[in-house]
Amino acid sequence: MRLEQLMELTELLGIELPIVQAPMAVVAVAQGSAMAIAVSNAGGLGSLPCAMLTADGLRKELESIKTQTNKPLNVNFFCHAVPDADAERESSWRVALAPYYRQYGIDPAGIPTGPGRAPFSGEFADVLEEYQPAVVSFHFGLPPAHLLARVKSWRSKIFSSATTVEEALWLEAHGVDAIIAQGLEAGGHRGMFLSDDLTTQVGTFALLPQIVRVVKLPVVAAGGIADAQGIAAAMALGAAGVQIGTAYLLCPEATISGIHRAALKSEAARHTALTNLFTGRPARGIMNRVMRELGPINSHAPAFPLATSAIAPLRAKAEAEGSGDFSPLWSGQNAIGCKEVPAAQLTRELAGGH
Amino acid sequence: MRLEQLMELTELLGIELPIVQAPMAVVAVAQGSAMAIAVSNAGGLGSLPCAMLTADGLRKELESIKTQTNKPLNVNFFCHAVPDADAERESSWRVALAPYYRQYGIDPAGIPTGPGRAPFSGEFADVLEEYQPAVVSFHFGLPPAHLLARVKSWRSKIFSSATTVEEALWLEAHGVDAIIAQGLEAGGHRGMFLSDDLTTQVGTFALLPQIVRVVKLPVVAAGGIADAQGIAAAMALGAAGVQIGTAYLLCPEATISGIHRAALKSEAARHTALTNLFTGRPARGIMNRVMRELGPINSHAPAFPLATSAIAPLRAKAEAEGSGDFSPLWSGQNAIGCKEVPAAQLTRELAGGH
Repeated sequence: MRLEQLMELTELLGIELPIVQAPMAVVAVAQGSAMAIAVSNAGGLGSLPCAMLTADGLRKELESIKTQTNKPLNVNFFCHAVPDADAERESSWRVALAPYYRQYGIDPAGIPTGPGRAPFSGEFADVLEEYQPAVVSFHFGLPPAHLLARVKSWRSKIFSSATTVEEALWLEAHGVDAIIAQGLEAGGHRGMFLSDDLTTQVGTFALLPQIVRVVKLPVVAAGGIADAQGIAAAMALGAAGVQIGTAYLLCPEATISGIHRAALKSEAARHTALTNLFTGRPARGIMNRVMRELGPINSHAPAFPLATSAIAPLRAKAEAEGSGDFSPLWSGQNAIGCKEVPAAQLTRELAGGH
Repeated sequence: MRLEQLMELTELLGIELPIVQAPMAVVAVAQGSAMAIAVSNAGGLGSLPCAMLTADGLRKELESIKTQTNKPLNVNFFCHAVPDADAERESSWRVALAPYYRQYGIDPAGIPTGPGRAPFSGEFADVLEEYQPAVVSFHFGLPPAHLLARVKSWRSKIFSSATTVEEALWLEAHGVDAIIAQGLEAGGHRGMFLSDDLTTQVGTFALLPQIVRVVKLPVVAAGGIADAQGIAAAMALGAAGVQIGTAYLLCPEATISGIHRAALKSEAARHTALTNLFTGRPARGIMNRVMRELGPINSHAPAFPLATSAIAPLRAKAEAEGSGDFSPLWSGQNAIGCKEVPAAQLTRELAGGH
């Protein structure tokens, strides 16, 4: 029955390999169209992270992609509700950061506030309609029904992440075509959307088979999968495919900083934590100074995505000095699959074709 | 190379199946010699939890086991340092519990204090020396060197749990024969001993391959493994064997309460958390009222194992009314493998022989 589901995913998408390259948006993005194109051309499903793009930027990327691949591709959006600014919380957060502002000679009054990441919108849908990508994936649930209906109208397949059995059942009931079972090991933002209680979050070994058992859709396993052995393990647990992010971060197509690369290559990568300091929502990154000193989860951090602004100038100043003390060093709990090889080669190696 | 390690474990122990039944001590014990005997006779490695036994109790169990199996068996001990009583912390904890004491008409002054669980000691070693079990496993690191040397002198194999790469390297350097890679999904007590920072804890999918990569010893995978597919997945990730606990908890040989059984069979089992409320150390159990109301991790809870005393009478009163509100409902994050079948049958089914 599970082997059948594997067929379903590759057939559903018309791709050769059951490997989805995870969309990774950092600042501006950890990877852009170059990586997505390379992975799709290698037979996997490349993904373009769009949470930090404008509609114009999205059009530019999709136009560029069109000239470089005709293979199926995934465009990924966040679909959070944008919170109202909370002056009191913002101010208490800036008090918490004050010693760091002083250290770096930053005037907090000069820091702009702003959302940092935009949710999926009608404007994005207008652009997508022109290009009709094979897959549109969402993080933090699904967009409003009318927007989802638009995407479905031109037959893009809909993927979204579930971090619990309840979320998987909810996504199935709301019409997705495949479910990404995002285990606790995964790097970057937790896709959780029915609860904000971190104790509900489950490791891949436990989450994947529980979701496979209750849904009829193909389930894509994510979190901790780093190599061909990891893919074999996920398939043994019933996955129809896998989504791999961290392993791609040392590829030349990844646009992360040298600081981030160095951290991924070091033993520091063994210790990650979920942190809300960088965006306001829990996301997994390598432990660094600000996470240690303020606690990786701090209740003063503004709501997602508003926390992004206050920490940005600290990050910029520290990075200029070669320090990742204030950078989101996104990584899953298993960085041993990271290789400094082109994304196409990594994709083939992951698929066992090396 | 990994297949070779699988051979090593079964050969190391002279057992047929690479399955270790996890030792599970509840109150007094979740399972005693009956389950261990059944699993060992079925070809796996049965385990006797000894943390809540006296030396006399241990002798009685081992004597009984001797008449029922000559197969290899594991006896498991905790090896924590017993903390000094801290009157202030004890008292602030009893303040936190006061509303519950009032609800159940319990006089806090009448509650005895006491350790609850005893670490491995010379007295236990005296008993073991008579029986020389095939395997002696430890949780929370290893006992003092002179005690470890005694156990090794009669050639019992030493197992201990690692929850991080650092702990695995430490255990290898200190002479264990096999390492149990305890992923975050696992039920019961985290074996962590080099750090008490819960963010260091890693899911099985990430922990297992990282440990396999750096140690030369056989690695037994634990956490989230519930069925034959889970075992196949763990083997794909390089495990030499697996340790399975939760799946055995509905076997007739398990001595857990009807309340605990009912919780494991219900959807409540989908939500577990690490909690220090019941013993003082983080251990995974099904979320219940006291965990929700006091937070699963509460800094007022006395140090391990001293927290056991204060909650015991609440548990007794609540259970008498059919409630698990104050019970440690130990479970891993994946309870789908629980079956109400004899432990020998479950062992064979896990091994794929059904």
